[in-house]
Amino acid sequence: MQIFNTIKGISGFLENYRCVNPDKKVAFVPTMGFLHEGHLSLFRKAREVGDLVVVSIFVNPAQFNNKEDYEKYPVNTENDISLAENEGVDVLFHPGVQEIYGDQSTNLIQLRYPDMMSRLCGKTRPGHFEGVLLIVHNLFVWIKPQYAVFGCKDYQQLLLIQKMNKDLHLEVEIIPIPIIREKDGLAMSSRNARLSPENRKDAIVISRSLAAIRDAWEKNPRILVKEMKGIYEKYLGSVQVDYAGIYDPRTLEDLPDDAIVTQGLAAVAVYCGDVRLIDNMFMGGNCGG
Amino acid sequence: MQIFNTIKGISGFLENYRCVNPDKKVAFVPTMGFLHEGHLSLFRKAREVGDLVVVSIFVNPAQFNNKEDYEKYPVNTENDISLAENEGVDVLFHPGVQEIYGDQSTNLIQLRYPDMMSRLCGKTRPGHFEGVLLIVHNLFVWIKPQYAVFGCKDYQQLLLIQKMNKDLHLEVEIIPIPIIREKDGLAMSSRNARLSPENRKDAIVISRSLAAIRDAWEKNPRILVKEMKGIYEKYLGSVQVDYAGIYDPRTLEDLPDDAIVTQGLAAVAVYCGDVRLIDNMFMGGNCGG
Repeated sequence: MQIFNTIKGISGFLENYRCVNPDKKVAFVPTMGFLHEGHLSLFRKAREVGDLVVVSIFVNPAQFNNKEDYEKYPVNTENDISLAENEGVDVLFHPGVQEIYGDQSTNLIQLRYPDMMSRLCGKTRPGHFEGVLLIVHNLFVWIKPQYAVFGCKDYQQLLLIQKMNKDLHLEVEIIPIPIIREKDGLAMSSRNARLSPENRKDAIVISRSLAAIRDAWEKNPRILVKEMKGIYEKYLGSVQVDYAGIYDPRTLEDLPDDAIVTQGLAAVAVYCGDVRLIDNMFMGGNCGG
Repeated sequence: MQIFNTIKGISGFLENYRCVNPDKKVAFVPTMGFLHEGHLSLFRKAREVGDLVVVSIFVNPAQFNNKEDYEKYPVNTENDISLAENEGVDVLFHPGVQEIYGDQSTNLIQLRYPDMMSRLCGKTRPGHFEGVLLIVHNLFVWIKPQYAVFGCKDYQQLLLIQKMNKDLHLEVEIIPIPIIREKDGLAMSSRNARLSPENRKDAIVISRSLAAIRDAWEKNPRILVKEMKGIYEKYLGSVQVDYAGIYDPRTLEDLPDDAIVTQGLAAVAVYCGDVRLIDNMFMGGNCGG
């Protein structure tokens, strides 16, 4: 596995690769490191569709609205390198903050979808998705992949990246990958490492609430949104809820209380202790559309 | 001169051109048509720096905050084609609105610099620069020029495009070209064609006010901004002023009344009848930086 720390290094390498191998496909997985089985499932998909698998590890300060969350974001680069190598990743891009942003930390360009960014995670994490779109745009420009693989846990992120990719004609094929879960159902996340044993126990209610809602809908597809929302209350008493709702999966608009669901997304963000976790499940569709 | 109406057509042509001529440079001039001597000066610069000169003509609805202004924007495609041909333009891209935006007229991605876009033209034309940056970004993606040539009349636009080009790593060399003026000093603009004879006479005060300010500064570089602003009042009584100020040319911030100017931009937007005209002049520097 080749490791690059500079934009020039990886861009030059890939430019040469494309020149020498005009018919080969580059598959790219952007990550913030502290890799887990969820990331590895993305790498495997990239390995399957691409001739060359490129992974980036960069904890992007621009997407953290909370400085403490940024500083506490778990890091284990050595382990990440060995995990990536074991999965057959060909190229690792691992730049520092200076390399990506230079001395510019303010007055960055904002890439925005005002409506969609005002919902779910966008509501309580101002600037988060602007930071995500900027780094993903620039990674796409530097790496110019044919494919990019993203997890469905960050479904709102996936949707925004798909829209940006289309509107800015970046010509990358975006491949969504289902959420990977622990045995008890907790969605895998780098942030899980920060949970205390007690918070880890509490965290199980997140996926249980979503599964209970989906089960209720599968048993009775004419169940009202209001009743589905009621199920959250039964499960999420022990955690601090940021949002928990039933949404239109294309627009992320709240579905009205008196609606029945043909295509719906149950999505949740909660705090377990000081760790913010998100999860979602689909009804009548899936994350790939 | 080859003319393309589709993105696929021009992208495919240019991809092939780059393949066959890996060392040749593409120079690009985006326009909204109704070409005048100002545009032709951009084409000549493009001809000078580029091996292949590409011009686009597209009246971009996304950058008009005023529907009537969009509908009244002057069009004369046949004449444009012959002017472009005479200047040695190699390729003309002339798409329709449907080709560029499909059926999407709302929920477009916004490319934003909140601070800089809140000043000068951004203040009274909400959404204008977001529309400009989106179309320029996408034209850069489709055409992938080495050089792009822009006029200094739209200095705020030029500055925003330079910033976007840098922040989104579009790797285009942006070349600014000085304002071309009529004999009486009026900055050339496609909108001048819409002036009534009376308004055309009034419009002369725009460049006269700027020249008077620059002259005063050249005579006495320690003149205060307050006094320079006073000069506008002497000249702009017969027109409706949108803004008329003395700005920091890097940030477009208002210079304080009690400051003296080492580098300054005198910039104006006024309505002559219902036609909005802009103009600017530099003190202690020029539009190229």
